[in-house]
This record gives sequence, C-alpha cells and structure tokens, in this order.
Amino acid sequence: SKEVWKKGGRMFSILLAVHLALLACTLVSSGAFERIAVHDYDVFFLLTVMMLIVIIWIIFYLISTSRCPDAILCKDSHAGPVWLRGGLILFAIFSLVMDVFKIGYYSSFYSCLSAIKIMYPIVQAIFVVVQTYFLWISAKDCVHVHLNVTRCGLMLTLTTNLAVWMSAVTDESVHKAHSKLKKNTTEELFRWLLKVGMRSGSTEACNCNSQICQIFKNGYFWLYPFNIEYSLFASAMVYVMWKNVGRFIDHHSHHVQRLKFRLFRRTFFVGIVLGLIILVSGLGVLIVYEVQVNSSTEPSKKGQALTMYYVFNIVCLGLMSLVCIGGSVIYRFDKRDMDRHKNPTRTLDVALLMGAALGQYAISYYSIVAIVASTPRDAISALNLTYALLMIAQHTFQNIFIIEGLHRQPPKEDHKRSSHQKELYGLTFVNVSAVSLRVPDSGSAAAPSTGTEGTHPSDLVRSLTAPKKINWRRKLLREISMFLLLCNIIQLWIMPAFGARPHFDNDTELNFYGDSMWPAIVDICLPFGIFYRMHAVASLLEVCIMS
Amino acid sequence: SKEVWKKGGRMFSILLAVHLALLACTLVSSGAFERIAVHDYDVFFLLTVMMLIVIIWIIFYLISTSRCPDAILCKDSHAGPVWLRGGLILFAIFSLVMDVFKIGYYSSFYSCLSAIKIMYPIVQAIFVVVQTYFLWISAKDCVHVHLNVTRCGLMLTLTTNLAVWMSAVTDESVHKAHSKLKKNTTEELFRWLLKVGMRSGSTEACNCNSQICQIFKNGYFWLYPFNIEYSLFASAMVYVMWKNVGRFIDHHSHHVQRLKFRLFRRTFFVGIVLGLIILVSGLGVLIVYEVQVNSSTEPSKKGQALTMYYVFNIVCLGLMSLVCIGGSVIYRFDKRDMDRHKNPTRTLDVALLMGAALGQYAISYYSIVAIVASTPRDAISALNLTYALLMIAQHTFQNIFIIEGLHRQPPKEDHKRSSHQKELYGLTFVNVSAVSLRVPDSGSAAAPSTGTEGTHPSDLVRSLTAPKKINWRRKLLREISMFLLLCNIIQLWIMPAFGARPHFDNDTELNFYGDSMWPAIVDICLPFGIFYRMHAVASLLEVCIMS
Repeated sequence: SKEVWKKGGRMFSILLAVHLALLACTLVSSGAFERIAVHDYDVFFLLTVMMLIVIIWIIFYLISTSRCPDAILCKDSHAGPVWLRGGLILFAIFSLVMDVFKIGYYSSFYSCLSAIKIMYPIVQAIFVVVQTYFLWISAKDCVHVHLNVTRCGLMLTLTTNLAVWMSAVTDESVHKAHSKLKKNTTEELFRWLLKVGMRSGSTEACNCNSQICQIFKNGYFWLYPFNIEYSLFASAMVYVMWKNVGRFIDHHSHHVQRLKFRLFRRTFFVGIVLGLIILVSGLGVLIVYEVQVNSSTEPSKKGQALTMYYVFNIVCLGLMSLVCIGGSVIYRFDKRDMDRHKNPTRTLDVALLMGAALGQYAISYYSIVAIVASTPRDAISALNLTYALLMIAQHTFQNIFIIEGLHRQPPKEDHKRSSHQKELYGLTFVNVSAVSLRVPDSGSAAAPSTGTEGTHPSDLVRSLTAPKKINWRRKLLREISMFLLLCNIIQLWIMPAFGARPHFDNDTELNFYGDSMWPAIVDICLPFGIFYRMHAVASLLEVCIMS
Repeated sequence: SKEVWKKGGRMFSILLAVHLALLACTLVSSGAFERIAVHDYDVFFLLTVMMLIVIIWIIFYLISTSRCPDAILCKDSHAGPVWLRGGLILFAIFSLVMDVFKIGYYSSFYSCLSAIKIMYPIVQAIFVVVQTYFLWISAKDCVHVHLNVTRCGLMLTLTTNLAVWMSAVTDESVHKAHSKLKKNTTEELFRWLLKVGMRSGSTEACNCNSQICQIFKNGYFWLYPFNIEYSLFASAMVYVMWKNVGRFIDHHSHHVQRLKFRLFRRTFFVGIVLGLIILVSGLGVLIVYEVQVNSSTEPSKKGQALTMYYVFNIVCLGLMSLVCIGGSVIYRFDKRDMDRHKNPTRTLDVALLMGAALGQYAISYYSIVAIVASTPRDAISALNLTYALLMIAQHTFQNIFIIEGLHRQPPKEDHKRSSHQKELYGLTFVNVSAVSLRVPDSGSAAAPSTGTEGTHPSDLVRSLTAPKKINWRRKLLREISMFLLLCNIIQLWIMPAFGARPHFDNDTELNFYGDSMWPAIVDICLPFGIFYRMHAVASLLEVCIMS
C-alpha cells in the first residue's frame, strides 16, 4: 500500500535492464566476428562483473527478507511449480559439470591465457549455485520491502541470465558453423578451438594434445544446451518474481491449486508406448544420420541420410499434428469453465510459447521460399518442403492445444466431488436447466470463484449429466499430452540440440540465400526453436497433470 | 457477454497475423538482395493481394456495423484522439501524392514493365483512401458483433500495414545504401534505379531521360518517409481497435476527458521561441551538411561538415536532456493523482516509446563500442562519442518525462473548480489534515473515481494550499513540452528522415564493423529511431495539452 505508482517503479528497473542488455548484446555480437577488434575476454569480463554484482545482491536480498518479518506478506501459488524448480536444479547440475569441464580445459594451457578465461567459469559456478538456491526458496515470494531495489536487483539478475544465454548461444553457433562449414579436415576445427582458447596469449606451445584435455573440450561443448536452458529457465522464474513484487493476492478469490504428481498412479498405455517407440527410433535415426553425414564424403550416402531424416520427421510431425487436432476437438466438447484468474506465470508461459515458435516459423518460411523459387526440384526438395510445411502446422496446432489446456480449471478430486455431490443432491435436487441458470454470467469480468471446497453449479450440471464420459475424455487428453511430450523431447529438442543440422547438409537453401545470410538466419532462429521445444515439454507436463 | 473466452478469440487472429507477417518478412528481406532469386514484383504481388482483401473486409465491416444497431454499444474515448487522426490524414495525403509520382514514374516506361508494378501504386492509393476513411469514422468503436471475423480482419489490416512499412523501409534503405556507398558516379545510382524498375522487362530502350520522369523519380523517394509514418500510424490505431473488440466500458468509473485544443489561447514564449530558433538553425545545418558531404570529394570539407553536424546535435541534445530533467523534477512536486484507468491507447503509446527507443539505443551502443575500441582517436571521434552518449541520455530522460506526463490526471477546468470549491467549503469546512484522511487508499487497486463533475478530496486539499503555484508549474511544463516537440521534429526526425547519414560519412564504425554488418545495423535500427521521434512528437503534444 506504500506504492503510489507501480508502473513508475517498474519503469526504472526496465530501463536499467534495457541498457545492460543492449551493452551485452553489442559486445557479444561484436565478439562473435573475428574481424572485429572485440575479443571474447571483453565479453567474459563484463559477464563476470555482472554475475558478481548479482551474487552480492542475492545475498543482500536473502538476509534482508529473513530479518524483516513483513517482507513477504503473501506467496503466488502459481509461480515456480515443482517441475520448473526440479528442471532448474537438473540443468544447474549439468551447468556445474560444464563449468568443471571448462575449468579443466582452460587450466590445461594455463600459462598462455588471460586470467579472466579461468575466472569466468569459476564465477559462473558460484553464480549457478547461489541463484539456484535463491530461486528454490523464494520463487513464490511477493516482496513488500525495498520495492525499487528489489525490482532493479531482479532485473539485473534477469539481464545477467539473458547475457549468459546470448554468450553461450553465440559461442555454440560459432563452434557449430566452423565445424560444419569447414569440415573437410578436422584439423581446421582443432586449430580454431585453440585460437578461441588463446586469442590473448602466444600461439605456440599451447596445444591440447593430452587425452584428458580432449575429453574436457568435447564435454563442455556437449553440455552447452543444458546451460542454455538453465539460463532461460532462471530468466522465466526471475521475471515472474519481478511481476510479483508489491503484488497483493486476494486469498478469497484465489483458489490454490494443489496438483498432485500422480503421474504413475493411472495407467498410461497408448501414449507412453507410442511415444517411447518414437523416442527410441528417433535416437537411432539421429545416430545413423550423424555418422553417415559426418563420415562419408560421397553425396549419395548423404542423400540417403537426409531422406531418412526427413521421412522420419514427416511421419512424426504428421502424427503429432493429428493428435493435437484430436486434442483440440476433445476440448470443444469439454465444458469445464475457463480459468480467468490473474496468473503472471501462465501469461508468461503463453507469451513464451507464441514467441519462441517464431524462430521455427521463420526458418520454415525461408526454407519454403527457397525451395519454391529454386529450379531443380528433386525428391529431397519435395521432402524438405513437406517437412517445412508440417513444422509450421505442428507448431500452430500444438500451441492451440497447449494454450487451451493451460486455461482450463483443474478438475476437483474425485472422492471430494462425490461427497459434495451427495450434499448438493440433498440440498438442491432440481432439474438440470434450473441449476444451469445459476451459472454465473461468464462475460468479460472474472466469475467469482467459490473457493477450494465449494462445488460450482456447472460442475454439478456436468456431474449430473455425464461423469463417465468426462473421465474417458480426461484420460484421452492425458494420453495425448504424454505422447506429445515424448515426441517433443526426442524429435524436436534432442535432435537439433545435439547436432543434427539438415539446414546445412541440404544445399538448396545455402545456394539460394548464400553462405552468409542462411547461417545467420538459422543461428538466430534455431535457439528459439530449441527453447520452444523445452518449454512445450514443461507446458505439456502441466496440461497432462491438470487434465 | 456472448464471449466465453476472450483470449482464445484473440489467439486465432494473432496466429493469422504472425503467419502473414512472417511470409511478408521472408519475401521482403529476400527481395532486398540482388543475388537471391526473389524479385520485388513477387513482393508487390503479395502486398497487392493483401491490400485488396483488406479493402473488401473494410467495406463489409462498414456495411455490417451500419446495418446492425447494437454492433457498437460503446466507444473508447481515449482511442483515436483528434491529433492522431489529423496526422493520419496529413500522411495519407502525402502518401497519395507519392502514389501519383510512382504511377507517373512507372508509366514512363510502361512497355517494359510487368503489370504488377503499376497495379501496386494504384491499389495502394485506393487502400490508403479506404483505410483512412475507415479509421476516421470508426477508430473509437468497441465492436460487439462478428467478434472473431472482426478480430481477424483487424489483424489482417495491421499485418498489411506492417508489410507495406517493411517493404517501404527496405526499398528506401537499399536506395540510400546504393546512393551513399557507390557515390563516385551518379551514373551508378541511375543505372540501379532503372534496374529496380525493370527487373522483369528488357533492359534496352527503357530510359528515364525526360524531365518529368526525373521529377517523378526524385519525388517519390523524397515522399517515402511520409508513407512509412502513415503505415505506422494506421497500425497503431488498428491495434487499439483490435484491443477494443468485445470490450465493455463502464461509463460510471470512466470519466470522459474532453481536452480542448486551446493551444494558442495561452501565451507560449520561451519554449516556442527557443524551439523555433533550433528548428531554423537545424534546417540550415542540414542543408549545408548535405551539400558539403555530397558534392565535395576532399576529406577536409567532409570533416568540417561532420564537425558542424555533431556540434549542433550535441548542443541540441544537451539542452533537451537538461529540459527533460527539469520537467521530471517539476513532476516530483506535482501532487496530481496518477491516472490508473484501463487505457489501451496509453499502454500502447508507452510500449511503442520504450520499444522504438531500442533502435537508437542499439546504434549508439554499437557506435560507442567501435569508438572506444578503435585506436586513432581524433576530434571527430570524441564528438561522435559525446553524441552517442548524449543520444542515449536524451532518449532515456525524454521517455521518463513523457511517460510521467501521460499518466497524470488532466486538470479540471479552472472555473468549474472554483464553483465546486465554494460548495465544498460550505459543506465540509474542515482542516486540511482531516480532509486528506478521506483520500482513498492509493494501493494497487484503482481508486474509484467520482465522475466528471465530482471534485476529489485531494483536489480540494491542493486547491486549499497552493493554486497559484500549480498554475505556474503547469505553464512551465507546457513550455517544456512545446520546446521538446519542436526539437524532436527538426533535430531528430527531419534530419535522419531526409538523408543525413553521419553513420556512413564517418569512417570509424564502417572500418570497425565492416561493410556488411554496420549498414545492416543502421538500416534495421534507424527506422525505429525515426518512428520514435514521430511518436514522441505526438505524445509530447498530448502531454502539452494535458498539463
């Protein structure tokens, strides 16, 4: 109640974040080009300073909120659900392993490096530990002291995570581009890696020849995707905390959803089995593809590998699109009320899903234009076109399915409902149309909810008419979301994240757009596509549990 | 009240817009490169089809809403204020002139062009007329029939405007880049212009040698900035209409602000005079700069012109920053209530101001990094660095000033206040502290307003304490906004929009980032910077009238 103008308080922290993000973006993008006289240690220096400031602020925050008893008056029950925090810890552990590999790799040629190269992974490891602890215990907080300092601190944390994310994405893209485009000799890549490691030092007598150094080097590039996801997960949670600063939650109108993690209490057959089949065959396809494309130099083998990759993906995407359409059709018949409570977590989820899908959309549209306008139309072009079109369709249908699922009220517990049903039968045993008249007006204003225990009249109508049908429907929805979840994991997250790049192995787009524009498009858009898949997996898990 | 789930209805129209926008973006960006086999007539074909569909939809909308009596139940008084609609008509007229020039230019070599080249400006002229009429009469509508069709139609209109904007910006950037980078002979430019005009036709016997053809050609490139602004103005108004589809406005809590356009009833001395001085001297600087940079080939003249340009801009930006800080300090002492009513127009204004400023921020940050990292540091580099830093500072301070100004309650009419004061004196002649206790809690919830006529208790407190001081303060605020308005027009809108490109005339950044990256950065970011200035002018006019 102290705050006169919330928007003004937010504005200053946004301005701080915008300026820091732009500075980081400038340095990171300049550092990615070899011709430009900005080196990667300049970037590492900025990131190290930012992370140190964030660590200090987090410690200050934890101390000040624990000392002040009325610092956190209420908690947002939607923020930081358990699977998000669990995922954060999982990615944090992989990030720490990556940092250890990085420290090991750089310490192999300690003498010819600037100190910041080794400082950076050490500070990053501390940052990951402190931030994960901070998010684990305070992701749900609605802070009410030091409003402006907290907002600025959270925005600083958010910007630091985004800057680390940008730096990791750039680093990985440069690495991938070098290893794909100059693939004729592995010597080339090796020389490049050395140069990255030692831009500041002398170039002689600093070789990574030992077995352990090679393991460190390969390990940290393979673990990059986890670090990238860690930064994005942390950013999303910090953003929700920032939205919740100074927020008052009305506990009467806000019914707490206690979703239990009863994933394996019910039987999941079709969804899980089909999903696992696709997962395993997808892993097989990925390995065969990688081996064939990377090892063989003859174009016919490469064509075979591409054909296999596209056919598998087209089958998979087609199945997923059909299943999503089926799920949306089932929702048409689902008369559960839409959940209209204010929920920053869900709003962010929806915005991220829609926004991150843009990356894959953009790649697909550029592909389509290139294929349609190119003249030699062979079988691989036709497969590529189908793949691009299905990619767009699948993203669209899946977004619609997930967003509809997230906006449904979670069902009440079955045993609770039956006990309530009895009471209500006794009290108001009326005909259905009379009860349905009591359904509150579902206009633009949020319908007042009746708390956790109270049963909605519309629930009663539903349970009077078709309780069996609803159970059957909910089971089907759960199967669908489990299937989609597994498909998203393998087909569309692991494959691009661990190196399958048909965009470069296939020549059509590369010839059409040229060697500079097409890699730029893919490198900017693909990380968003990968993030979309990660985020879709988390959202599908939520849909699965809620339906 | 028919709508069950507003977000779902919006989602479909957003998906439609996203797909269309991406397709247009792909074609426009591909068409900009000569190497890529996508031609500008492909782009024109897509845009023509989109504009025709929008024209048909607008006619359908106008007929259906005029026939159905309860189609528009309420109007959003904040949407489409008179200066926005006036500006739209002004830009529409210039756009029509541009279309006439374009038709004239292309019809000069009618025989060697594809028909779409002449169709496009004709359809665009019809589109501009129909859309301007549509926005003039229905910008304030809150539509309540055909909700989903209307949303999709509005999103289609928005996307079409954005696509036209993208196409115009790309066309102009390509033109500017060609005329700047290959300036040694004007022959080059001339040949390029011909090529643009005739990619589809035969290259011989199609010359633009006649006097009238040259006038047409120059005319339409000079009128591009107006067309670009027209598209953005129309997009903003269409977006607000889309937000208002299906909205109910509570007329009790929503007090209509009738701001009178009494700009010249009060005396404006210092602000207008200072602003006009800067406007005139800025025009002089622009002309001298353009002449010296474009005509002379010796580097010393160019250095002189750059020095003059930077010094003028630094003085101007410094003055503007100081004035903005002064205005923000005055707001600190201004105890008017913050306006917390829901207002999509204002939310969009603020978002556009913050978003469009990113363009100029990005250019400035890239400049700063280049100047700091480059080794030969001469006087022009120092001036450039100061210019970039002041640019960032000025944008930030001006944003803070404008956003604070937009969120103030407009003052009540003076004569009304005095009559109410008397009544209230009679009723509740209490001491000030007791009255101030009745001020409603200004927490996160919006304070219930007391309608148009009722005077707020806090108004009473204020009018009891210092009515003279407030008038003096408001006058000063009005002077400040007038001064800033004039400065924004000349220094920061006309100068970049009409061809001053110190970014390319100064070699530092071009040498640092290379010939492909620096033009890409400037061409992507500068249109946002120009739009920021346009939008700041409109917002400053609103602040000036409201204070």
